[in-house]
Amino acid sequence: MEKIKSSLNSINALDLEAMNKTKQRWDSLVKPIGSLGLMEEITIRLSGIYRTTDFNIDKRAVVVMASDNGVVEENFASSPQVFTRILAEKMARGMTGVSVMSKAANADVIVVDVGINGDVKEEKVINRKIRYGTNNFTKAPAMTYDETIKAIETGIEIADELFNRGYKILGTGEVGIGNTTTSAAIIKAITDFNIDDIVGKGAGITDEQLILKKNAILKAIELHKPNKDDAIDVISKVGGLDIAGLVGVYLSGAKNSKPVVMDGFISQAAALCAIKLDKRVKDYIIPSHLSKEPGAKFVFNEIGLKPMLDLSMRLGEGTGCPLAFQIIDTSIYTLNNMATFEEAEIEKELLVDISKDEEI
Amino acid sequence: MEKIKSSLNSINALDLEAMNKTKQRWDSLVKPIGSLGLMEEITIRLSGIYRTTDFNIDKRAVVVMASDNGVVEENFASSPQVFTRILAEKMARGMTGVSVMSKAANADVIVVDVGINGDVKEEKVINRKIRYGTNNFTKAPAMTYDETIKAIETGIEIADELFNRGYKILGTGEVGIGNTTTSAAIIKAITDFNIDDIVGKGAGITDEQLILKKNAILKAIELHKPNKDDAIDVISKVGGLDIAGLVGVYLSGAKNSKPVVMDGFISQAAALCAIKLDKRVKDYIIPSHLSKEPGAKFVFNEIGLKPMLDLSMRLGEGTGCPLAFQIIDTSIYTLNNMATFEEAEIEKELLVDISKDEEI
Repeated sequence: MEKIKSSLNSINALDLEAMNKTKQRWDSLVKPIGSLGLMEEITIRLSGIYRTTDFNIDKRAVVVMASDNGVVEENFASSPQVFTRILAEKMARGMTGVSVMSKAANADVIVVDVGINGDVKEEKVINRKIRYGTNNFTKAPAMTYDETIKAIETGIEIADELFNRGYKILGTGEVGIGNTTTSAAIIKAITDFNIDDIVGKGAGITDEQLILKKNAILKAIELHKPNKDDAIDVISKVGGLDIAGLVGVYLSGAKNSKPVVMDGFISQAAALCAIKLDKRVKDYIIPSHLSKEPGAKFVFNEIGLKPMLDLSMRLGEGTGCPLAFQIIDTSIYTLNNMATFEEAEIEKELLVDISKDEEI
Repeated sequence: MEKIKSSLNSINALDLEAMNKTKQRWDSLVKPIGSLGLMEEITIRLSGIYRTTDFNIDKRAVVVMASDNGVVEENFASSPQVFTRILAEKMARGMTGVSVMSKAANADVIVVDVGINGDVKEEKVINRKIRYGTNNFTKAPAMTYDETIKAIETGIEIADELFNRGYKILGTGEVGIGNTTTSAAIIKAITDFNIDDIVGKGAGITDEQLILKKNAILKAIELHKPNKDDAIDVISKVGGLDIAGLVGVYLSGAKNSKPVVMDGFISQAAALCAIKLDKRVKDYIIPSHLSKEPGAKFVFNEIGLKPMLDLSMRLGEGTGCPLAFQIIDTSIYTLNNMATFEEAEIEKELLVDISKDEEI
């Protein structure tokens, strides 16, 4: 718990002076004030995070937390549990969606085994396994409170090391069969949103499986009574090791004054927990896309952030992050390279125009 | 009118065989079917447009139609009319939003004067001026029917030439003080949506100016009674030369079996007109972003397309297009480089797993 506490104690408020300078720069450019919307807002926030107006995100990675969920025993997941291990291995070899999209966006992919239920055969997957999957939360708490802390601290350690190695921004990703279920359970436990609003078909299940999924979540919450004011308790009872690991990645970003790009629904559940631990963490989170998972929009409202992209994606893995990196690149480039009104000599041109046309 | 007619006569239906092949390729990749959402849908449609599964958008440009609108006499525009000329010149010199964002996205910007109310001093702006701005449509029709045809045909010619020179995709852009007013007027005339839903503050005006803007639109429609079933009549009475030029760009895309990326609100008004001329044009239009202009979402519903990006942008110029080009690049790269289930040897892995575990 020490690493979590010290991380929270190290969080700075955003640097308002740097943010103001970046806003002034945007306002000096040849365009109506604020007309580049989120491109402006995101870069202004980035200067507050980096505490300078001179920043870039050239070195970046998506951190994929991989783990298994005992609740798949209830037989409403779309794929067998072994897919978690297989996909994590293929991902580390560059074969899956997030790997290929990250290559296109010049980003690395770091795959971390925090709890795959099987032995991983690919050495590129970082072995930080805490246990072989969680318990079926319809019968027992997913894991212990201490295991949850350990998973969060693993996320902090992994991200701390990446930031120390020069990564300027990280994205969140995950692989874990059953993790839209654990995510919805966490969201339900913390927000008490209507179950029908926040539970969706994940990678693709039947209407009958959807009912089983909702019932499993309600049963687990009834059984374990997670304390909504203690995110660690919530994750330990109805969450997963991947989500706990991602909480750590967000905390590390806030601790290190570095931004963390949030992928879809599972990454949102982790963000909700991280912000519950300390609301200042929100300042360091950059949302990427609106997942097709129906609960995603409710969580965005709850968190109070707005995604850049709406591509009806529901693959997970961190696939929204490389796309967001590219939009951020373009935003930074635009901020630095558009002409100011002064450089464009707009006032001079207007004076010439007025002298020509006496009506004005 | 001959060029418009022959363009419409040359439009092909999308190549369903190529689209099916691309869909089969997506379905063979290691991910749940359809889980990359619009990335899949757009590339499937692109293969139907290009009539092949082997395509890219390496050579691309944003075509910016620049023209002035007489209605600015009514004094509710946010900037003086001379800004149209100044911005068009600065844009051609690489200094404005669309220029810089296009450079970041490796796209060219082609600025065309179809009706700026002044003589352009920058030779990089292509001079295809049809008249020095339009009439104030609260007093007279914006232009003649023949001038509208000429502007549309200018757009066709410009885009035809670009496609002939090897451009594989074009984006739509515009600059013209007062053109959110003409766009809203066109949308109102064609759809009869509620005026309060579709008229916004453009680049930034006061509440009083907003009322003047709405009244000017209603007055023009009452006065000229545009025929909603004749898009050319609508544009000539309450539209603008820039919008007519963009209609031509869309028609050229459909004629040449090439995609055209649609920017924000003004580009949407032009798309609505192009689709009114022939509904098959819609198949060749790829939307980029949801403009902050409040009418944008209503036009998306009317057209039946969905934007990829939601960045609360309201700059215009074509700024959504370079961002869309980058997302399309990543989508094509992902389509071509993700592993198939076969390449990833998933079935083999599953068989190994089953032989290990007799419970399954």
